[in-house]
Parts: sequence; C-alpha cells; structure tokens
Amino acid sequence: MMYTKKYVVITGASSGIGYATAKAFAKRGKNLILVARREEKLKELEQQIKSIDSTLEVVIKVVDLSVEKNTYQLFEQLEKYEIETWINNAGFGYYSMLADQNFAKTISMIRLNIEALTILSMLYVKKYQDVEGSQLINISSAGGYTIVPTAITYCGTKFYVSSFTEGLDHELKDSGARLKAKVLAPAATQTEFGKVANNVERYDYDKAFGTYHTSDQMANFLLELYDSDKTVGYVSREKFSFELTGGRFDYSGNSSNNQKS
Amino acid sequence: MMYTKKYVVITGASSGIGYATAKAFAKRGKNLILVARREEKLKELEQQIKSIDSTLEVVIKVVDLSVEKNTYQLFEQLEKYEIETWINNAGFGYYSMLADQNFAKTISMIRLNIEALTILSMLYVKKYQDVEGSQLINISSAGGYTIVPTAITYCGTKFYVSSFTEGLDHELKDSGARLKAKVLAPAATQTEFGKVANNVERYDYDKAFGTYHTSDQMANFLLELYDSDKTVGYVSREKFSFELTGGRFDYSGNSSNNQKS
Repeated sequence: MMYTKKYVVITGASSGIGYATAKAFAKRGKNLILVARREEKLKELEQQIKSIDSTLEVVIKVVDLSVEKNTYQLFEQLEKYEIETWINNAGFGYYSMLADQNFAKTISMIRLNIEALTILSMLYVKKYQDVEGSQLINISSAGGYTIVPTAITYCGTKFYVSSFTEGLDHELKDSGARLKAKVLAPAATQTEFGKVANNVERYDYDKAFGTYHTSDQMANFLLELYDSDKTVGYVSREKFSFELTGGRFDYSGNSSNNQKS
Repeated sequence: MMYTKKYVVITGASSGIGYATAKAFAKRGKNLILVARREEKLKELEQQIKSIDSTLEVVIKVVDLSVEKNTYQLFEQLEKYEIETWINNAGFGYYSMLADQNFAKTISMIRLNIEALTILSMLYVKKYQDVEGSQLINISSAGGYTIVPTAITYCGTKFYVSSFTEGLDHELKDSGARLKAKVLAPAATQTEFGKVANNVERYDYDKAFGTYHTSDQMANFLLELYDSDKTVGYVSREKFSFELTGGRFDYSGNSSNNQKS
C-alpha cells in the first residue's frame, strides 16, 4: 500500500497532556489521529487544530481502550494510515489506601494503563519496527520510578510502563530495528488527573502541590524527548526539572543504551 | 466467626516453587490451602504433605486465576478458613521478542501475574490487615528489578509485582497495620518455568544457565524471608546469593523501611 500522508496518533487526547500534545504537534504541521472516549472534546480539539493549521488532516476515533477488543479494533481501523509516531497517553491514576480501593476501578486502571498500552505497543512494533523515523512514546510517571504513598497500584502500573518501554528500546536497539521507543515520566501536571485519581469534582493543584507543570509545558517536554536520541524524559519529583536520559532501570543485556546518565 | 485452625494459602502450588514451598510449610506443621489448575498435581502434593505430617489439614482448590471472576470466587470460598499467610506464587514467564509475541499469551500473563495478584492482595489486605502475625508474600523475580533481554513484558509484570508489594509494605507500616507484605525475587530456578516461558516440551537448566537454584532451595529462601522482618528476599543474578533487604525501589513517603539494605 502507498501512503501519501503521515500521522501522529495520540490516545487519551481529550484532555490534559494528550490534548496539549496534539496542539504542539499541530504547530509542527503534523496530521493527527485523536483517540479518546469523549467525542465532544475531540471535536473541540479538532477545531483548535484547524485554527492552528487548516491544511492538517485530523482523524477522530471514539473508543474506550480499557476494553481489550477495542484496542485491536482501533489498530485495524488505522491500518490505512501511515503512523510515524504513536503516543500511548491514555491512562488514569487512583489515590487510595489499598484496603479502601474499589475493585472495578482498579481493574479498569490495570486494563487501560498496562493491557491497552501493551497491545497497542505490540501492534505498532510488529508493523513499524523497521520503518525509519517511527517512534513509540509511552507516558509513564515520576511514580513509575519512585513509589508514592497511597498510590501503590497506580505506581505499579507505571513501573510496568517504564520497565516495559525501556526494555523495548533496548530490544529494538539490540536487534538493529529503526523504531525508537521512549518513556515520558511527568510529575504533577495540571490536568484532569487529580480529579479522577482522587474521585472528586474539583481538584486544586495550587493547594495539593507546591509546584506543578501545566499540560502545555509537559507537551513541550514531550517534543524535546521526541526530538532527542534519549530514551527517557523524566521530571524529578524533588527538583521539578526535566531531564533527558538513557534507560534508568538496570538492564542485563548488551544494549549501548545501558547507562544511567 | 471463631476459627479453630490456621492455614497457609499457596497459589500455583502444582509445581516448582509453589509445590516445594507447600512441603516446606508442611515440615513446619502448617495446614495448607493449595491452589492451581491441575487437580492431579495438587492431589499428588496432598499425599506428600500427609506423608510428612498426617495430622495436617490440606484443602485443594482447582482454579484458573487468569480469569478475573475466579479470583473473587476463590477468596469467597476461603472465607471460612483463617489464613495466616497468603502466598501469590501463580505466574508464568514469556521469553520472546516483543514483535514475535502472541497476544492471547501476553494478556493471559498480565491477567495472572498482575491482575489476579492485585485482586487477591486487595482481598487479603482488606480482611487481614489488622491481624497480628499475618503475612502476604508475593513472588516476583530478579527480572522484577533488572530488565532482562527478550523478556520485557514478563519483566514489566514483575516490576509491577515488586513495586506494588514494596509500596504495600510501606503503606501498611505507615498506617500501623499488623499485616506484613513481602517480595520474593528468585533468579533462575529449576521449575516448569523454563518450559512454559520458552514454549518447549523440555528445558535444560544446565544448558541454559551456568547456575540455578532448585525449587527446594528457593522454598528455603522463602522461609528465611517469612521468618525475617525484612521486606525483600532477593537473588542476585550475578552473585547468585540470597539477600534479605528492605524495599529496593525509591519511595517518597515516610516509612521507616525506606532503606536499600
């Protein structure tokens, strides 16, 4: 099949980092495929993208990725597009003591943060691993490198994302593949995350955190990671600085990327 | 409800570390609840336990824990037993490049290694967090601290287990709960793991590894962890020594257990 245009896919594009990242890629002249559950938010984002650059193609996919079969269906529907960058951003947090956690919300978080990300990563790697210039960016968290109190299940899902994605980058490098796999690990970012994770209608980032980034700042960090040859874009929870580094976890293989810098 | 006896639950008891651990607890005079898919193997183990100590109670539960609803059903069926120790040992590995991985096996591994372990941990914590002497031991892997080539999804599931369980131990200590949560992280151990992870009929540990532990050795390490006040029992992949340590991952809370040794 001959492709005429290239696209950036962003899951969880209806708000927060995903929404801001879509606008940031629009400013770079990238065609976008926006995935989320809320169609209205995606249509609003489409309008914003068109106002940035009316020549851009925008494709909207309304889907709940916490349901396994929806992930395969989504990828199948996107077979006709050439996807140069896939960003697994969809995910949510859950602040609670384990003893108080709800089962359905916990399972839904694992299915979205881990299962959907894994399936979509596998599908993208199978198809694009030998395509020069292709990138897979998985959104983890500072909590995917440091365990945070009252968020242990969420942190577990993000330790999965960090180690899986770092491991994938090593594997791709070791095998000479062209696709790059990268991890973005934000700390507190002003999005709908706080509302969902704490199960409240309003969440005040000024009250909850001494420092936080805005979604637009985080989208710019994501673009720095996208432009770099590093594997991890990491926000330190202490210093609140953004650092581009190689894989942060120990790796027992031979990849040249096995440094902690 | 008044309980008259106490039990140790072991999931994945039909072979390997689970099977050996059941025998090791039998030698300590512990009543056992054995959980696995293969009834014949559990009945064979029951006979071995009775030959060690004919006065012990042995309960067999035949169940596939990779199916979500089975996990809740199992716990409900065990409500009538007082469970002093719960060992989430059921799990399997998958050695493959990500691009070659099968979706069904990948999802099944995530559901068993992560979801079932999480649900059963939650159920056990909700009921037993304030019971003195209770322990939850989750079986991770050296691959749950160091990423291993061609096993990145498996390692991701074990990074989840390590971080989730270390986090739980911090949370329980911080809140003054009585329940202890611990992680066992074996390196190569001669079990059915090699066969399943590599999808082969026979797997030669002598050929595959310079050094490995037997299941009986690992069961003894598990008992050392059980007897200690440390959080992690870790087999170094380089030195092949067994070390008892505090939480190994960074933790941003106040738990006194936040040291690396």
